[in-house]
Amino acid sequence: MDLATVLDGFTARDWQGAADDAGPLRVAVVGLGWWTRDEAIPAIADSRLCATTVAVSRSREKAREVAAEFEGIEHGLSGEDFHDGAATDAYDAVYVATPNATHLEYVESAADFGKAVLCEKPMEASVERAERMVAAADEAGITLMIAYRMHTEPAVRRVRDLLRAGLLGDPVAVHGHMSQPLMEMIPNPDQWRLDPELAGPGASVTDIGLYPLNTARFLLESDPVAVQASMDASGEAFADVPDERAAFTLEFPDGVFATCTASQHAAQSSHIEVIGTEGRARIDPAFFANEPRQVTVTREGTTLDVDFEQVDEMREEFDYFADRVLTGRDPEGDGDHGLTDMRIIEAIYEAGEQGERVEL
Amino acid sequence: MDLATVLDGFTARDWQGAADDAGPLRVAVVGLGWWTRDEAIPAIADSRLCATTVAVSRSREKAREVAAEFEGIEHGLSGEDFHDGAATDAYDAVYVATPNATHLEYVESAADFGKAVLCEKPMEASVERAERMVAAADEAGITLMIAYRMHTEPAVRRVRDLLRAGLLGDPVAVHGHMSQPLMEMIPNPDQWRLDPELAGPGASVTDIGLYPLNTARFLLESDPVAVQASMDASGEAFADVPDERAAFTLEFPDGVFATCTASQHAAQSSHIEVIGTEGRARIDPAFFANEPRQVTVTREGTTLDVDFEQVDEMREEFDYFADRVLTGRDPEGDGDHGLTDMRIIEAIYEAGEQGERVEL
Repeated sequence: MDLATVLDGFTARDWQGAADDAGPLRVAVVGLGWWTRDEAIPAIADSRLCATTVAVSRSREKAREVAAEFEGIEHGLSGEDFHDGAATDAYDAVYVATPNATHLEYVESAADFGKAVLCEKPMEASVERAERMVAAADEAGITLMIAYRMHTEPAVRRVRDLLRAGLLGDPVAVHGHMSQPLMEMIPNPDQWRLDPELAGPGASVTDIGLYPLNTARFLLESDPVAVQASMDASGEAFADVPDERAAFTLEFPDGVFATCTASQHAAQSSHIEVIGTEGRARIDPAFFANEPRQVTVTREGTTLDVDFEQVDEMREEFDYFADRVLTGRDPEGDGDHGLTDMRIIEAIYEAGEQGERVEL
Repeated sequence: MDLATVLDGFTARDWQGAADDAGPLRVAVVGLGWWTRDEAIPAIADSRLCATTVAVSRSREKAREVAAEFEGIEHGLSGEDFHDGAATDAYDAVYVATPNATHLEYVESAADFGKAVLCEKPMEASVERAERMVAAADEAGITLMIAYRMHTEPAVRRVRDLLRAGLLGDPVAVHGHMSQPLMEMIPNPDQWRLDPELAGPGASVTDIGLYPLNTARFLLESDPVAVQASMDASGEAFADVPDERAAFTLEFPDGVFATCTASQHAAQSSHIEVIGTEGRARIDPAFFANEPRQVTVTREGTTLDVDFEQVDEMREEFDYFADRVLTGRDPEGDGDHGLTDMRIIEAIYEAGEQGERVEL
């Protein structure tokens, strides 16, 4: 396989198995923050295989407002209504986009009702709670997918194809980065992302460092065996977390080192690059939903820039999830996959605190 | 100052103080490997302020051959001849490009003769020997410059100008990388770069990891306070060194983390990128002498690619060195600057071995 063959199929949905009319998978969206309203619900409306039929919020009033605002949403429920089993006939699957530390109970209820779950990342605020989530899903035999939208990003998939085809040789090093000016985006020091009780162990690795971390795993198709980390949190709004910013190195088997940085107080920027024995590939920008994707591949002295038509990653993600549910196949980013990230993240915070390499 | 003003002067020699006819500074080149013959001597021939007048090698025969090969070289000397003070009237300065662990004695002799010295990087094979080199130069009152050719690279200087002008805001993270397929370039497992007695503590950090390391210091105008590192040396030719490849994080003051990788067994590749609170700048390719330079600056959502006319970095470096000697000014990359790198490198190897953060 050559470079052109790999890159030519760049917008193809190489994962879709269900017919376009196999759905819709009816989705209850849980957690109605800006992400769900501005990104998730419109993406579902635009999808081939999904439809939003239920909206769930802590506040029943807000849920009903959102239900009234969007066509096709039949029910606006409070969290309590949801846990009590209201309107279970009106949805087949649940999308959980509440603060990290509140995912578990929604997934447990969904599992009780036999509903498939797409849960935002990181899947929970601690390894212990993530393990309980996986156990609940396993016991109920439901599909549990963690919402790694990078997995259905055509640019990311094509770079993995290049690696699989051996066109970059053996991978040697990975560089990854994601940063955003959180306090400019959401100028509220009391937001849940800065509250360890709701967000988990930190602010930058958990929320955005996760992107280069998980994408490195996805591209290398391998999991790190040890981590090291450096952290800093000098900004005022970051007094309760260890990491306004962080640098961490993931040691993969065979001496492949992925070195990553993340910051909640820097210009919006993201990239991931794999350098191999025969060449390299870089995706930049890589991770923000509102940016185009560009892949630069260098091999044998030749550099090729490929501009990727921007796809709606959230739409692709919802259709991938629906596709897996409708065809009875496991998603790649399943509960165990997410749990591995949780263990890595916990190790990164431990390494950062202790100034020591932590083995996984 | 705006972006255009900074980038417009991109090929200017903002450092030259001497008149073009102030020289030539007559240089004795010591160590006649491929680098000296193919890169250094031609660069000096092309310089405004230098001329090669003496060639020194372990073998007098080789030195005389090289002297005969290049116009203007008056003397071919053995190392012994050099140390004995032969032809000291024929040169004003010494360029030392022998294996790392053999720099010290040449610099000591040059200092004895009152000659200025341009010494290849890393300046020696250990901190202890580097300290002796600095002491010898200080005692003799000679100029000692370490050959960081990145310091006169226009692309690197312009990115520093952007940082100084505050156009990227406060720096937050740096990514740097350098790799080359050493065994394809020099297919000899007995080469000095793989021999700790000649090269120093390792193979990749000392030889090429030094580029992102030193360039991060140069761009940030700051020195790291702690380091972490991961190393691997599984390739057969690398049995005697800890690092066929390495990843290391430099912790600079104010929580600025520079995360770097280096490998002697990967495709040729190099970059350095600074991400700040207001924008970012990337140089890619960054470090190999035979590649053009491209700088990509992203600020306020706008990305600007600037292709830099390739300058002969070695020529610039020799002229910078001559300029400092002829105008009686200290070079930026002086002995103390090089010694700081040596201490950082030693800390990186210690951190890699122990799996622990090492403070400087």
